[in-house]
Amino acid sequence: MLTRRTPISVADAQEKINAIPLKTETEVVALTSANHRILAEDVHAPYDYPHFRRAGMDGYAILASDDHDYPREFTVRGEIQAGATWDTPLHSGDAVRIMTGAYVPEDAGKVIRIEKTRPADDQTKVQIITTEEKSNITEAGTDVKNGDIILPKNQELNPGGLAVLTAFGVQAVKVYKKPRIAIIATGTELLAANDQIEPGKIFNSNGIMLKNLVEETGGVVDFETQLPDDAALIKQTLEEQMATHEIVITDGGVSVGDFDYIGDEARKADQLLFNKIKQRPGSVTTAFVQNNTLVMALSGNPGACFTGFYLYMEPLIRRYQHQSSRIKHVRAILAAPYNKTNGFDRYLRCTYEFKNNQFYVYPNGINRSGSLANLQTTTCLALIPHSTTPMKVGTETDAWLLPFK
Amino acid sequence: MLTRRTPISVADAQEKINAIPLKTETEVVALTSANHRILAEDVHAPYDYPHFRRAGMDGYAILASDDHDYPREFTVRGEIQAGATWDTPLHSGDAVRIMTGAYVPEDAGKVIRIEKTRPADDQTKVQIITTEEKSNITEAGTDVKNGDIILPKNQELNPGGLAVLTAFGVQAVKVYKKPRIAIIATGTELLAANDQIEPGKIFNSNGIMLKNLVEETGGVVDFETQLPDDAALIKQTLEEQMATHEIVITDGGVSVGDFDYIGDEARKADQLLFNKIKQRPGSVTTAFVQNNTLVMALSGNPGACFTGFYLYMEPLIRRYQHQSSRIKHVRAILAAPYNKTNGFDRYLRCTYEFKNNQFYVYPNGINRSGSLANLQTTTCLALIPHSTTPMKVGTETDAWLLPFK
Repeated sequence: MLTRRTPISVADAQEKINAIPLKTETEVVALTSANHRILAEDVHAPYDYPHFRRAGMDGYAILASDDHDYPREFTVRGEIQAGATWDTPLHSGDAVRIMTGAYVPEDAGKVIRIEKTRPADDQTKVQIITTEEKSNITEAGTDVKNGDIILPKNQELNPGGLAVLTAFGVQAVKVYKKPRIAIIATGTELLAANDQIEPGKIFNSNGIMLKNLVEETGGVVDFETQLPDDAALIKQTLEEQMATHEIVITDGGVSVGDFDYIGDEARKADQLLFNKIKQRPGSVTTAFVQNNTLVMALSGNPGACFTGFYLYMEPLIRRYQHQSSRIKHVRAILAAPYNKTNGFDRYLRCTYEFKNNQFYVYPNGINRSGSLANLQTTTCLALIPHSTTPMKVGTETDAWLLPFK
Repeated sequence: MLTRRTPISVADAQEKINAIPLKTETEVVALTSANHRILAEDVHAPYDYPHFRRAGMDGYAILASDDHDYPREFTVRGEIQAGATWDTPLHSGDAVRIMTGAYVPEDAGKVIRIEKTRPADDQTKVQIITTEEKSNITEAGTDVKNGDIILPKNQELNPGGLAVLTAFGVQAVKVYKKPRIAIIATGTELLAANDQIEPGKIFNSNGIMLKNLVEETGGVVDFETQLPDDAALIKQTLEEQMATHEIVITDGGVSVGDFDYIGDEARKADQLLFNKIKQRPGSVTTAFVQNNTLVMALSGNPGACFTGFYLYMEPLIRRYQHQSSRIKHVRAILAAPYNKTNGFDRYLRCTYEFKNNQFYVYPNGINRSGSLANLQTTTCLALIPHSTTPMKVGTETDAWLLPFK
């Protein structure tokens, strides 16, 4: 079943994924579990903020017309603690002791901070020593006016944003639903987690990696399995999962060998996006759409699976949430030798350093496509363009900084 | 109760926090919930990886001594699927069909990939057309040798790291315990979440912000409350929480007014680290140690609370996990006007842009210390040094890029 495949460029493959129309749904979640969720509607202020005239300093509130001829004594009419209000009119010569953040009497025009006063001999009075430039009063609506958009649609909420919403009494928000993703690993060589290691077999290391990558990116993995190389079982599982998920990610079963079960399904799909890409690692990476579900078939090879996730899945999962990719594209200098060449562009697993306003990338260990050891330490992918001669140390190239690293 | 306080520099305050000795504890967690936890011990490989000689390509395994005089025909002795093994000796002229990732017969020296073969007329044979440079066999232990450190102590696990550990059958890891943190908001002005807004009162917006900031940073918030300005109640709650937490964060109650309850506790503590810092916002930020618990008293002012968390708490919570701060210090250019001056250094809430290998910072909205609206959109803090003249647009200054933004 050796089939010719026509390789396309990485940019074309990304463009095809990016052109898939998405149906985004929304849900309402409590603010207490909304950190890093994405707002699906503008949130408007239900009142001014601050919603009352607020003292900016501890001190004494006085009439604006009394703010002259210091030092002189004022009669202390009372005290407004934080949380309290005041409804007695002020007269010339009156002062009200006031706390930072407290309600300022309606007719007061200035708060003289406590450092600019001293106690008077008469305990019912205070001596104001000198004036000060500012009123130390924050007018209602200074920060936000009733009806203003507090936070716009499509913002990713963060702890500061949760504070902003809480200040307006908002307790729940409408956010985009996370896309539901199924992960299916294929291969008769895969051991179950509790098995002992044995020759010819390996543990399913891609499963836990993909699940955690999806979750970091903002997707939900609610189905995860591993299947032997059994065409009927793979077909049945794929069909079941496609019916209930926005995305199905498979790994393994896409090589050109006899067990290219995913590739067989791909060829029969509504829309085959690609089944070969001009890239290393992971040239066999395959994607197809069936009944509005995208099936992304990544190579079973751990390095290729890792790279394929970042190149194709991360931007898609983010797009389900109306967000751009968190992967940062920069120009970077190859800072250590990498001598291999390839007929396809290589996305090399690297670490990076930023110094003197320049990014430097370092090939990460031996970087064989099947190597596991560098998956933990890789912080970026760097482009080694296809060539017959190695890229020289010091060459500037494209690099993609990976998130959460 | 107006007490003189001696302000110290931000660097000195950070140094004092950084000098607190920490008692770190460890726990064992399942790998399935270990993403972003920090390894508390080196993990050694329990076997070679790969732990068997592995085929790098789909093709035919042959003896190394047979690798000459192509094209010629080989007798196909069988097939090794992924997950299977093979124990029949190979003889000259024998070939075994083999899949990518499969077990390579012990005596085979090369795998000729399928693209370099074609079917023979005799269906029990295959014709190998030409040789190739590489053996296409990954020797056992190529990536990792039995006993090697797979992942070293103090690494923050990521999805790639979970894959590496799973490949070695590791199902649980010893990690540092997250520090337990209590958050106490003080102020009679604070409404409960379900209350209606009313003059003089505000919602406790700092509580949800601090809780989510702590959790993002790797701490656990297992106690959260808000208290009125009641000295006895605040004292009792503080003492109870200090007894059971590594860190207690308070907000509010640290100004120089009559309700400086936290400040009073600070003055009586085992070790007062500081109660005034030469910074805006948040000069009243206070820290003390009592019975090995750090109490960090942040200003109740949202902007000051936000800034204080990043300047003092983020690095401390990270240190509990043997990690450095995730806040990145860079040099950046002030790209928009900021005309205020101050006798203390200001940590200005900004957004940043990176273009042409240079960071640019933009003051974020009005940036009044009490302003809420910019807490969501701030992505960095930029230093406006104390001065009597405004900092000019185009000036290079220090900036700190905030994580998870």
